[in-house]
Amino acid sequence: MDEGKFAPSASLALPPFHPSAFPPFSYIYLPMSIRLLILCCLLSAQSFAQISQDSAAFFIKDIYRQTYTEMQAYKWLTTLTKDIGNRLAGSENSLKAIHWAKATMDTLGFDSVWLQPVMVPHWERGDKEQVLMIAKDVGATQLKAFALGNSPGTGNNGVRAEVVEVQSIEDLRALPDNAVDGKIVFFNRAMDLGQLSTFSAYGGAADQRTTGPVAAAEKGAIAVVIRSLSTRQDDFPHTGMTQLSDEIENIPSLALSTNDAVVLSNALKKGKVELYIRTTCKMLEDNMSYNVIGEIKGKTNPDEIILIGGHFDSWDVGEGAHDDGSGCMHSMEVLYRLHKMGYQPKHTLRCVFFINEENGLRGGKAYADSAIINNEYHMAAIESDAGGFTPQSFGCSAGALASLDTTMAHMNDFMELLEPYDLELKAGGGGADIGPLKPKTGVMIGLRPDSSRYFDYHHSDADVLENVHPRELASGAAALTSLVFLLDQYGIGK
Amino acid sequence: MDEGKFAPSASLALPPFHPSAFPPFSYIYLPMSIRLLILCCLLSAQSFAQISQDSAAFFIKDIYRQTYTEMQAYKWLTTLTKDIGNRLAGSENSLKAIHWAKATMDTLGFDSVWLQPVMVPHWERGDKEQVLMIAKDVGATQLKAFALGNSPGTGNNGVRAEVVEVQSIEDLRALPDNAVDGKIVFFNRAMDLGQLSTFSAYGGAADQRTTGPVAAAEKGAIAVVIRSLSTRQDDFPHTGMTQLSDEIENIPSLALSTNDAVVLSNALKKGKVELYIRTTCKMLEDNMSYNVIGEIKGKTNPDEIILIGGHFDSWDVGEGAHDDGSGCMHSMEVLYRLHKMGYQPKHTLRCVFFINEENGLRGGKAYADSAIINNEYHMAAIESDAGGFTPQSFGCSAGALASLDTTMAHMNDFMELLEPYDLELKAGGGGADIGPLKPKTGVMIGLRPDSSRYFDYHHSDADVLENVHPRELASGAAALTSLVFLLDQYGIGK
Repeated sequence: MDEGKFAPSASLALPPFHPSAFPPFSYIYLPMSIRLLILCCLLSAQSFAQISQDSAAFFIKDIYRQTYTEMQAYKWLTTLTKDIGNRLAGSENSLKAIHWAKATMDTLGFDSVWLQPVMVPHWERGDKEQVLMIAKDVGATQLKAFALGNSPGTGNNGVRAEVVEVQSIEDLRALPDNAVDGKIVFFNRAMDLGQLSTFSAYGGAADQRTTGPVAAAEKGAIAVVIRSLSTRQDDFPHTGMTQLSDEIENIPSLALSTNDAVVLSNALKKGKVELYIRTTCKMLEDNMSYNVIGEIKGKTNPDEIILIGGHFDSWDVGEGAHDDGSGCMHSMEVLYRLHKMGYQPKHTLRCVFFINEENGLRGGKAYADSAIINNEYHMAAIESDAGGFTPQSFGCSAGALASLDTTMAHMNDFMELLEPYDLELKAGGGGADIGPLKPKTGVMIGLRPDSSRYFDYHHSDADVLENVHPRELASGAAALTSLVFLLDQYGIGK
Repeated sequence: MDEGKFAPSASLALPPFHPSAFPPFSYIYLPMSIRLLILCCLLSAQSFAQISQDSAAFFIKDIYRQTYTEMQAYKWLTTLTKDIGNRLAGSENSLKAIHWAKATMDTLGFDSVWLQPVMVPHWERGDKEQVLMIAKDVGATQLKAFALGNSPGTGNNGVRAEVVEVQSIEDLRALPDNAVDGKIVFFNRAMDLGQLSTFSAYGGAADQRTTGPVAAAEKGAIAVVIRSLSTRQDDFPHTGMTQLSDEIENIPSLALSTNDAVVLSNALKKGKVELYIRTTCKMLEDNMSYNVIGEIKGKTNPDEIILIGGHFDSWDVGEGAHDDGSGCMHSMEVLYRLHKMGYQPKHTLRCVFFINEENGLRGGKAYADSAIINNEYHMAAIESDAGGFTPQSFGCSAGALASLDTTMAHMNDFMELLEPYDLELKAGGGGADIGPLKPKTGVMIGLRPDSSRYFDYHHSDADVLENVHPRELASGAAALTSLVFLLDQYGIGK
């Protein structure tokens, strides 16, 4: 395109600040410091009443301007990913990250910052996985694979057995009784990319990873490999949690890269194929970890909390940049930005980095347990855990303490202010970490970014800073900051 | 994130096809061929009336499914970018691309495909640009630069002169009369990234490139360099059209990479800096080129046209992948997809690849001239020229033959069907190529994708296939196909 042909949208023109001939602030140039001073006076003068929609629109425009200009979430994410790296719950690196997060929040002017102790599982991957495919016409071929999280290892000697390919757990169960006895089951169903949301496509294929290994063990198999849950055809294996059984001996399970899943499937079309697999992963004793919590106390409604959070643990591959470094940096920026803009919230704002979402959800449960014991009412619990991509909407689900219909009708009124930013409310959403908090919550909200690229990177070595776009990440931070501001101003209509 | 925590949105659940206990087709597995057969029977049975909203929703869901599964736009774009490459109007490569496009459309089952002759400017870049910075403390440094499109060259010997940095044309004009006599003007105003849309940020900085060189020539300068209009700080210069004057001798003008604009500006802070510039670009005689047009004739309203297009020329750098290979492949897929799905449109659907948008707009003008002479009514003219990113909305402007308010109110009714796809109508939009067609048009519509990354690549060597995400490109194609289908079914309410 060339200049001039993309006319600015009329809907981006905010209404005048005062209904006079005076042009809106957004159209006259004032240094940022003066703009902020004027705004703070206006917000402060109205601090015990709801501010006007015009003032709110002006404030949101400044949130976006400052977020895009400062790029704070991206700066923090750079430190987290490049200086610390990935951070599986229970690992030494996760503690390093937790202490960095607390130290960072300590500098941001919040009213309080604390660590909430949580015992977490401690699973270790051990040596680099070895997967060797042995087939008559192809010879021996190394396949790229990651052990699935929680999976037991093969032991030092590894295992070698024939492979049986199936497309689903149902297919596996329909096989004759001894069809996979002593064999390795290969779940090879691809994500259905014809679906609108890649999250739906993921949801439709994830059972192979979560419950496939136990189903295979019940049928007599000695190990499982799955096709990685990925939206790309490439060489990156994608790990993720597999569920263990208390009633049967759990078996080693791994994810192959999508390219190597094709290699294996093609070899199987020609005849018998064996895999040699060696993994040394193991589950150790639980150890101590922490949720990291920062808080700005509310002026008029301090006992009503607006929570914004993500999970701070990641898998032990890549850098956990999108999953969920982005969501945590989003959450920290919400409180940072509002504080920096001189905004004094009515409600208590709390930023929470939950630990151990990936393989246990212990952080989310511990936070909820504490909230229930201490009778802490959460007006809204918001989670960002779908990546640092351009946000499209906020997905809302019912908490136990408010009617979703009433809340969404009320929120839809103030969501008009976010129309210029291509944001809207949708029914359905939330987050794993805030799930246990439902009994103490009015409304549960999940940020929904564009999902096109999320599963290109998810749980793989490709989930690194380089695949996070600074402006897209900032758009999520600005969207969440604006939502928290609006919830604080206008409540949930309960 | 982990599985299960991103609950599918209730709003994605389409209403049942029949108001009976029979589940919607979308929830029961049927082979694609059978799904299509059923759908075509239903659409055909209703072909002289508007189909029901439920049928339309079902059809749109299938448009998305097929577009995401087949990835046809991306396959074509791969051929265009990798086998042909960039295609500045007037170049041999642009003719190669035009013949490929016609040959491709010829295979797609359209009712007719033709080339519309257009005389276009023929500007050539010549030798690789040489820009050498000479400064006392720094010594001589090569700077990365592209000549601006249409710019004259320096001649074989190049030019060498002192540099004067300004931030704007106003700054330049405010300088003393002989301040830049015989010197090189350096326009160094960055894009304002605090703006919501990068297109607005671009619009706010582009005058340096479009009218800066003539303003500098009028003031006595002998050459111009500008800071590239880019959202990134990197080593890629971004070219683009500069306007020529008939009244003064035009001077050589170039864009520096943003990194080298910083290098130059820093050197200037320390004292006098000279640039040696050598470019051999030149404007040759106009030569013959073509718009490429494919058409499916309407069944009931053949004299009412729905046009969907992009521009087929690109700059002579990179591959013109986003700008505007993506828009052209979008447009071709709209007709291809509807035809492949057995859809028989009421109105005539026309896909147009306009030539010479970048430095002349001759293709858009020639198309409009022909439409005016032949009295061709365009119910809607749609352009995709903002990149192959995830679409956010359709921007609408008034054509001369319908009221925008009436049209948008009518369209907003059927836009409910695109809510699950995070699409909406906005006021303001269109496209450069369809601009001249306004007198013969009801409504002008531009696709508005996420603009976060567009100006990272625009008019630079970074605008290559590798920076187009297959699924994001497909989302644009599916959105446009769905819009054209809805416009064909429900009209514009005129």
